[in-house]
Amino acid sequence: MNQTPQWFEARFSPEVLVRIKVDRLVHAVQSRYQIIEVYDTTAFGRMLVLDGIINVTEKDEFIYHEMLAHVPLIAHPHPCSVLVVGGGDGGTVREALKHPTVYRIELVEIDSAVVEVSRTFLPFVSCALDNPKVHITYEDAACFIKETAQRFDVILIDSTDPIGAGAILFSEGFYHDCRARLNDNGVLAAQSESPFFDPHIVKPLYEMARTVFPIVRMYTALVPSYVSGLWSFMFCSTSVDPLARISQERIAALQSLRYYSLDIHRASFAVPPFVRAQCAV
Amino acid sequence: MNQTPQWFEARFSPEVLVRIKVDRLVHAVQSRYQIIEVYDTTAFGRMLVLDGIINVTEKDEFIYHEMLAHVPLIAHPHPCSVLVVGGGDGGTVREALKHPTVYRIELVEIDSAVVEVSRTFLPFVSCALDNPKVHITYEDAACFIKETAQRFDVILIDSTDPIGAGAILFSEGFYHDCRARLNDNGVLAAQSESPFFDPHIVKPLYEMARTVFPIVRMYTALVPSYVSGLWSFMFCSTSVDPLARISQERIAALQSLRYYSLDIHRASFAVPPFVRAQCAV
Repeated sequence: MNQTPQWFEARFSPEVLVRIKVDRLVHAVQSRYQIIEVYDTTAFGRMLVLDGIINVTEKDEFIYHEMLAHVPLIAHPHPCSVLVVGGGDGGTVREALKHPTVYRIELVEIDSAVVEVSRTFLPFVSCALDNPKVHITYEDAACFIKETAQRFDVILIDSTDPIGAGAILFSEGFYHDCRARLNDNGVLAAQSESPFFDPHIVKPLYEMARTVFPIVRMYTALVPSYVSGLWSFMFCSTSVDPLARISQERIAALQSLRYYSLDIHRASFAVPPFVRAQCAV
Repeated sequence: MNQTPQWFEARFSPEVLVRIKVDRLVHAVQSRYQIIEVYDTTAFGRMLVLDGIINVTEKDEFIYHEMLAHVPLIAHPHPCSVLVVGGGDGGTVREALKHPTVYRIELVEIDSAVVEVSRTFLPFVSCALDNPKVHITYEDAACFIKETAQRFDVILIDSTDPIGAGAILFSEGFYHDCRARLNDNGVLAAQSESPFFDPHIVKPLYEMARTVFPIVRMYTALVPSYVSGLWSFMFCSTSVDPLARISQERIAALQSLRYYSLDIHRASFAVPPFVRAQCAV
């Protein structure tokens, strides 16, 4: 293990760097796909970094994971089967399992080392990975979705940025294959990057999704450790309106929510005019 | 003028620094109250820095200024007179002037150098300061509010952080004096810091305000150049509910909005449960 650096430096854009004081480099490994590092920090607690990009921090991961999981799961009238693409840390699975109707979660993660590192060093997100409802497949999700005979009520795309191995998860072919594996009333949600710094990524992603799904809506959340703080998610469906028939009772039954609520569900779809303009959403 | 540094470093917390690539140091001056710097940057455009803290950036100032001004002004049934406390850059005044009922704005700024620098180097925010409806007083706002005989429909507290000269603007005495200068149906809004990094500032501020005003509500906006991105504002009133009687017509009449909208007005009051818990709002 290298000597612990004093500061971890994350690149929000070529012109904006964020430096986070590091107490300790806990673990570092080069997997087949990426460099995986775990740091302890005062500001954000334990932090999982993939190829230099902050992936999960103990202090704010709940925001991203609650919003990626609960918005589509609550929008769906009765979600039973869930596919999580990426998300080997386990945070999205942990949130999806809070829904009592969900009896099967398929997690497809390309890099088994992410799951191993998370199991060992990030129990606060990986805690639900051993739940008997969860099945993990280590495979490229683009291959998995082409070959599987399974269908899902909800697909959650918990991808890294569209560079390297993750790029295909932003492609039209992948979205077509996902749509084909959704049940009636099926819903897909994907993390869709920072509309403030990365409209050049966000805009084509939404344009592509609109060629595949009749309903494509942006919703946002505030994730302090992510680029600009303003993070977007893309809600896609053939038939489900994310703001119709939201059940207060189903939301009230979800345990230990810290970001998501009925009000936040509705509010998250209020996209500022400048984002609508520069991302064409 | 000093040699232009390559990077401007802002301190979001003792453990989180943000480094913004600088193209040029445009201006630097030590006023009676603070060090005022103006930088040109690629990421945020022109940037006003007060005592090392980012105050205004060309690329995202509209978010902060629209939200500080329009939420209380639209909540008020018929705003005519406005007091802006601080805000010598002019951005809050620029937004308040978009309301056709407003015929008088009193801007009370302690530091005339901020106004001068903004007039010379930041025309995009200072552009409305010469409007005949605007009267500028260079004075400590805490003294002004004690002595003035004027009354206002809306008071907008566009302060710096509660350190140094700005600290008194977070005090109970100042809030009592503000309440005494409000007309019936009067509304006050104040920037109220980052609920993610600074709950130790936010919580006592709201507790104090609740001893002065019967209606105290938090609303939030996403300001990428501010600490954590998640910024809070405090809405105070003796009688006006910020979510009642919102006029779509009055909002539609506002020119060149980029962040604020009817949906954003409503959504901004949806405060995540973790913020409610750690800031007691």
